[in-house]
Amino acid sequence: MESKLQELKTHLMEINDLGSAASILHWDQTTYMPPGGAAARGRQLATLSRLAHEKFTDPKIGKFLDDLQPYEESLPYDSDDASLIRATRRGYEKATKVPPSFMAEIQNHAAESYQVWTKARPENDFSAVQPYLEKNLDLSRQLADFFPGYEHIADPLIDFSDEGMKASTVRPLFAELREQLVPIMQTITAQPTADDSCLHQTFPEAQQLEFADDVIKRFGYDFERGRRDKTHHPFMTKFSIGDVRITIRTKEDDLSEGLFSMTHEAGHALYEQGTCTDYEGLPLDGGASSGVHESQSRLWENVVGRSRGFWNFFYPKLQSTFPDQLGDVPIDTFYRAINKVERSLIRTDADEVTYNLHVMLRFDFELDLLEGKLAVKDLPEAWRERFQADFGIVPPDDRDGVLQDVHWYAGGIGGGFQGYTLGNILGAQFFAAALEAHPEITSEIEAGQFGTLHDWLKENIYQHGSKYTAPELIERVTGGPLRIEPYIHYLRSKYGTLYSL
Amino acid sequence: MESKLQELKTHLMEINDLGSAASILHWDQTTYMPPGGAAARGRQLATLSRLAHEKFTDPKIGKFLDDLQPYEESLPYDSDDASLIRATRRGYEKATKVPPSFMAEIQNHAAESYQVWTKARPENDFSAVQPYLEKNLDLSRQLADFFPGYEHIADPLIDFSDEGMKASTVRPLFAELREQLVPIMQTITAQPTADDSCLHQTFPEAQQLEFADDVIKRFGYDFERGRRDKTHHPFMTKFSIGDVRITIRTKEDDLSEGLFSMTHEAGHALYEQGTCTDYEGLPLDGGASSGVHESQSRLWENVVGRSRGFWNFFYPKLQSTFPDQLGDVPIDTFYRAINKVERSLIRTDADEVTYNLHVMLRFDFELDLLEGKLAVKDLPEAWRERFQADFGIVPPDDRDGVLQDVHWYAGGIGGGFQGYTLGNILGAQFFAAALEAHPEITSEIEAGQFGTLHDWLKENIYQHGSKYTAPELIERVTGGPLRIEPYIHYLRSKYGTLYSL
Repeated sequence: MESKLQELKTHLMEINDLGSAASILHWDQTTYMPPGGAAARGRQLATLSRLAHEKFTDPKIGKFLDDLQPYEESLPYDSDDASLIRATRRGYEKATKVPPSFMAEIQNHAAESYQVWTKARPENDFSAVQPYLEKNLDLSRQLADFFPGYEHIADPLIDFSDEGMKASTVRPLFAELREQLVPIMQTITAQPTADDSCLHQTFPEAQQLEFADDVIKRFGYDFERGRRDKTHHPFMTKFSIGDVRITIRTKEDDLSEGLFSMTHEAGHALYEQGTCTDYEGLPLDGGASSGVHESQSRLWENVVGRSRGFWNFFYPKLQSTFPDQLGDVPIDTFYRAINKVERSLIRTDADEVTYNLHVMLRFDFELDLLEGKLAVKDLPEAWRERFQADFGIVPPDDRDGVLQDVHWYAGGIGGGFQGYTLGNILGAQFFAAALEAHPEITSEIEAGQFGTLHDWLKENIYQHGSKYTAPELIERVTGGPLRIEPYIHYLRSKYGTLYSL
Repeated sequence: MESKLQELKTHLMEINDLGSAASILHWDQTTYMPPGGAAARGRQLATLSRLAHEKFTDPKIGKFLDDLQPYEESLPYDSDDASLIRATRRGYEKATKVPPSFMAEIQNHAAESYQVWTKARPENDFSAVQPYLEKNLDLSRQLADFFPGYEHIADPLIDFSDEGMKASTVRPLFAELREQLVPIMQTITAQPTADDSCLHQTFPEAQQLEFADDVIKRFGYDFERGRRDKTHHPFMTKFSIGDVRITIRTKEDDLSEGLFSMTHEAGHALYEQGTCTDYEGLPLDGGASSGVHESQSRLWENVVGRSRGFWNFFYPKLQSTFPDQLGDVPIDTFYRAINKVERSLIRTDADEVTYNLHVMLRFDFELDLLEGKLAVKDLPEAWRERFQADFGIVPPDDRDGVLQDVHWYAGGIGGGFQGYTLGNILGAQFFAAALEAHPEITSEIEAGQFGTLHDWLKENIYQHGSKYTAPELIERVTGGPLRIEPYIHYLRSKYGTLYSL
């Protein structure tokens, strides 16, 4: 049996090598590739992902899994071998249930739809994308139907990115969160808006990067096993446990942009750098889910990186990096500026408090669309109504309303958004668990030290890769299910010092 | 038939995509990869090249070639389709004649041998590598024997990198060249050595790169379809016709290093950027042979880039780039410095005149070893003797003698060196043909213009990719076979202005 498992591992590693190669090609495409390389690069990426998919859906993988089932059942559930076989089976079932021709149809339609969207958005022309979106919705429904037996039609789609999560668990959680968040936001936004002009001076890029590199090094990001490059849309990417890279974007007239894209992507990277090296190149090598991944980027970006304790330590350093710009700006002003709350139109620009309202609006619409309660043609109007209800403002056009995010236009409808808010909730929940185990984390952060926190996260979360699903991991780490209370508590206590709540 | 050809092309392009992906991974490995990525990168590269090899040696490729033979025979020899089928068949026959298990044995032994060499060279310990070199020789002989019917045992090995060349053509050519070169070198080195101290000042890297980028842009290197990065051992690499990159190395205390590694690699890159775009991703996409490739790097590096005409235009610019270092250095001094000839121990540091003596020494030993006329154990002594005969000096140790080049220790014996000298000979021969067609090239170079030369090279050489073998191409371009006369004429005329010859 162990030799059969070894053989399976060899196949899986080969598939992983193709996937990693694709990631390297993609990283190069978005960082260094000259314009002339674009056409061939698209073809090369398509070849690699097609070959990886062919190899993973080869019936011999299924045969291995069948043969290994008795061995798996003889092992403890959380042993590495049983977990590997289980995770591989879950992936194999997902990959084989959908016919390749249907996946190709989805991808082709998505590519076409994306092209139409790139023109329709600047032209504020929802009607141009409407038929594409209708087809996207139809294809998303068909995709879900390849996984019969679901409770809610969105469940299989949610499961692709947040394994183990369902509409029936996420929806009530989000409803509860929204109920709490709307009044907090209303109370805050009724008060004078924070002045963030101190962030909008001229900050030369080189010094921004030097400062932010030092921050993420102190977090524990290992530059010997990663690097940081510039790109247009920041992301984290992994080629192996020893090579986990981040890409970031800076703006010379907006200090937040570079700094918080660094801490955000570093959070993702710390997770991947912390994977148990026994999992290298295997299906356990990678985060548990989109929500758990986002919990780490948001924990390091916000819970740590936008905290008062953090800046008590780092602000004097930032001031000496930018003496002309910040020398006379008191820490209170700076701290309010980086935690400014405002009702805004664009999700990706939103602050910690309002961000989830943007996400939940999209999540609810996804369910309504999939259920057939909402027609695509009525989406722009529904968007305006819900925006009015949640934010008290109405987007002046569809460009900054229903057309703003690429997700629905270049992919499917369903499963693409919940991870962001799950991540915010979970980041706070995990941080609370870490603090309970190690109350000294607070004072360490005030001293610019992150070792205890980082070690706790490695021990409890990072090392496990995707051995556990998100619900299993949350139970294991916090002793209970996903809960919004730690997050609400975190927001109330943090924003209670900045505003009257 | 045309649909069958189309199907074959689809397969070939997939194989090319795997190869290009490997090239991208390798480029990243030598430019940006953090140290932690090394282990997985080796595995990923091995997977990609194994898959590409498996796919290319799949019997279905042979079947396509058989089926297409009548079609090929119905077409003119130099039509694109016939050439594609012909080139694919040559590659297929080479790839399938050697059993994969034997290739693996060669690669494994090479990896082991390389490791031993990296220690043995600094320790000046030939005896440590001797058994590995003996096995390399044995494996090289066995490799040749997979191609029975050869005239000389080195022929199949030469053919791997210089298709269409044989010991019986190269050996007499080299003997003739050596006969002419040794007295030229002796005459020059009996005269006072050029003073090249002007090159060994402090030249900040940024200005070096700015200057050299301008030079290669003027050559015609297209930065929209390529880029330049730093590495330890410079090379050119191609991911597609639209993405041909160079990597270079600079030294702040040696102006030659960066400048001439740029012009050298740019020469290789101009060749690849000039390939006919119909060949994209197919076996015709790439240079004709190692010698023809080297002819382009040496033509742009030396024949153009170390010429008096070139510097008549560029030296004032270089002086204004480095006014403190070169402002008072007359052009004559600089020109002599960059064309300094001296008897030196190390091939890679050698000048234009002595370089080929280093190469031919190695080529002759390769033949002697393969023929069994020379035993590996006698190589160090043979090296010293031949060095004395050619250069009139004797290396003080094996480190800078027989141990200096990685080739024999990390690869096979045979076929690895002749391309360098074939390139020097050919570069001069092609340049003479270009000049004959367009005598104005000389005055254009003096004006910093390279369009006529570049266009002629594209038209006559670059666009054809590997449609023609080197002998076919030389015949086509120069109307005759490979000849040393243009090269000897070039050396005599150039060095005749610098030394009494």
